[in-house]
Amino acid sequence: MVELNFHPGDYVRLRLALEEIDGQVLESPDSGILLIKLKSGYNIGINKENILAGRVIKKYSEEEIKLPKREERKELPSVGLIITGGTIASKASQSTGGVKPITHVDEFLTYYPELLNIVNIKKLEIPFMIFSENMTSEHWIKIAEHAKKMLDDNDIKGVIISHGTDSLGYSAAALSFFLRNLNKPVVFTYAQRSIDRASSDASLNLQCAARMAISDCAEVVVVGHASSNDDFCYAIRGTKARKLHSSRRDAFKSVNAKPIAKVWKDRVEFISDYKKRGENKNNLELDTNYTDKVALIKFYPGQDPSILDYYALKYKGIVIEGCGLGQINESWLPKLKKHIKNGLVVCMTSQTIFGKVSPYVYSTARELERAGVIYLEDILAETAFVKLGWVLGHYGWKTRVKEKMLENFAGELSNRIEFEE
Amino acid sequence: MVELNFHPGDYVRLRLALEEIDGQVLESPDSGILLIKLKSGYNIGINKENILAGRVIKKYSEEEIKLPKREERKELPSVGLIITGGTIASKASQSTGGVKPITHVDEFLTYYPELLNIVNIKKLEIPFMIFSENMTSEHWIKIAEHAKKMLDDNDIKGVIISHGTDSLGYSAAALSFFLRNLNKPVVFTYAQRSIDRASSDASLNLQCAARMAISDCAEVVVVGHASSNDDFCYAIRGTKARKLHSSRRDAFKSVNAKPIAKVWKDRVEFISDYKKRGENKNNLELDTNYTDKVALIKFYPGQDPSILDYYALKYKGIVIEGCGLGQINESWLPKLKKHIKNGLVVCMTSQTIFGKVSPYVYSTARELERAGVIYLEDILAETAFVKLGWVLGHYGWKTRVKEKMLENFAGELSNRIEFEE
Repeated sequence: MVELNFHPGDYVRLRLALEEIDGQVLESPDSGILLIKLKSGYNIGINKENILAGRVIKKYSEEEIKLPKREERKELPSVGLIITGGTIASKASQSTGGVKPITHVDEFLTYYPELLNIVNIKKLEIPFMIFSENMTSEHWIKIAEHAKKMLDDNDIKGVIISHGTDSLGYSAAALSFFLRNLNKPVVFTYAQRSIDRASSDASLNLQCAARMAISDCAEVVVVGHASSNDDFCYAIRGTKARKLHSSRRDAFKSVNAKPIAKVWKDRVEFISDYKKRGENKNNLELDTNYTDKVALIKFYPGQDPSILDYYALKYKGIVIEGCGLGQINESWLPKLKKHIKNGLVVCMTSQTIFGKVSPYVYSTARELERAGVIYLEDILAETAFVKLGWVLGHYGWKTRVKEKMLENFAGELSNRIEFEE
Repeated sequence: MVELNFHPGDYVRLRLALEEIDGQVLESPDSGILLIKLKSGYNIGINKENILAGRVIKKYSEEEIKLPKREERKELPSVGLIITGGTIASKASQSTGGVKPITHVDEFLTYYPELLNIVNIKKLEIPFMIFSENMTSEHWIKIAEHAKKMLDDNDIKGVIISHGTDSLGYSAAALSFFLRNLNKPVVFTYAQRSIDRASSDASLNLQCAARMAISDCAEVVVVGHASSNDDFCYAIRGTKARKLHSSRRDAFKSVNAKPIAKVWKDRVEFISDYKKRGENKNNLELDTNYTDKVALIKFYPGQDPSILDYYALKYKGIVIEGCGLGQINESWLPKLKKHIKNGLVVCMTSQTIFGKVSPYVYSTARELERAGVIYLEDILAETAFVKLGWVLGHYGWKTRVKEKMLENFAGELSNRIEFEE
């Protein structure tokens, strides 16, 4: 075996038995395999034993980043921008072939110059830079606090929050509940592909988010590609947005509700009802009463109900993702009844994602409901999980948990969905 | 308050302050509320205090069921039929407004006379009659055993299995793995609405299932409405079928793959590749080696990783539904590493349902993969859960679990999906 003195990021030429290959060395999980990114964009793994010779054509070095000066453009409408990390704030990593976070604030804006032709970024906050699978309720609260401060500024028309996609649905739901009496737009946006890739969705998403943030809509929304075309975005209600594809640019779908609006770089077209700017005459309130003593459990066939004993010990409430209309194995009934009696709050949603749950069609569900399981109609399981933590975080609502779980705080319940579609 | 001597199922007339209402009394979870099914099909709840008077127009009584004689129709192609319960084998319950199982075998066929014009039901088995949320691996094995016996009969062209929708995806996946060297069709079908309702999908589904069961396709498939129109069905590969709506008739979607075929009552049009009848020259084998020591865990933000200690104690393997490309909170890494070292098998799928997982884009996933987490490409989480129980059920595969999890046994891996769509 020839000795290959390569480092990740190096551009190399390899001689194999039948051909020569040029490409960039990537970090490989297997020391016997050389992982190479070809010009075509594809990655291939080559058994090192099959490499007859190899040499470095260009050594890898981090590029220097030039930082521009950010100036206020006061002729444009003002917004606040909260950057939290994620792919939208990342760039391709030469050493791994994956992506890595950007490290300078202004680098973010360098990547998105078009944004600065739509809005004036009056306030910019970067509370943390993380990939969103690492978010917790503490992060949701921190984002909400920054948003509150920005929204209280009379000059600021709306707030844009850039966020990783992986847990964005949960964060958007959290802010939908935390920001009471909202009277300006709060717009989450994201990227599925980092900005330095040809197929990046980041720039269109961010421009459309800016357009939405100065629009007439006083809700928490998620703005991102409406299809895999790079033409316009949807604005989806924060409590109804779910990531339904791991890699496509139109990753988020509006579940059990139409999107609120189509959004282009230069205009917004509303396509369903929404809360309007200035409709709410009360002052914005930040209500981050939240308990982490809640869990989300996806039911599966044959699942041992003794998992409920584990959850009942550690949590105040659980959201079950049942089957279909909200069913679980009937063998779960005795334990559920016991734990509910002892104070555990149990809510039911559906793993079908689309459609409502209902306790009125099948006998097990009727019995579950009689035992005190709260059937959450068409609320998304993820939104239900966040809402339960928020409702149980309010000491004063202790005797009214069911009522509060079924109160429509932020469009999480679509009353107009026909059960019989 | 007037005294109302009503029983569930009674057809009654109520006098309220401003109007009179006719309808059928339903079982009510709340003794203060009278639940009424109106002629329009809608249910309303009326506070008993608001009822000024009421009388029974027609008392409820169970109708008599006439049982027909079933005769073999030998001029038609023969199939086997396995009835397992679910809504397709249920009818509306007058007393609850929901549905209840039918109680006689022949009643099933009375409801579906058109079926008997397409196929001759040479063998009929009813191993149990349950709603599918109550299915476990024991039920999957029993169904597979009956299917095997039927498929071994040279006269029988294929097998139809009628099944509840709630866990149908899991059962279809199980049979896809249990029936090795399949050379005839095994067709699951279902109903979202019981046969005695105007909007029932049962009859079309069952006729199309029969058509598919005598077709050229030697795979386990799920046949059901392609849209909410009552015109044709899709045949979806058993490992790729997921229930994605709690009530619509087109509840099942083909995930990360095109459906295999469009199916009408009178013909089948194949629209993607499939295994053909007779292609496999080996004998059908029943391989029901299965262990229940597996679990499915949906990750959510802030989830306490100590749940892993619970699972590691009780199970041999777990399937995680991670975020996006297969991410979880980085705080899970130490516990995962420890348990994998001690022998726990950990597989990764995505809660986005659509798209692949990949450990090559983000750093946490790279580290998870290095720690031994098996990234299952585009396998559905539910299919992965069933497959893991089957793979770990094979003692002889103990050292080859990763290889076997990534071997394409029944179309569960779609190799041709482009990661970059």
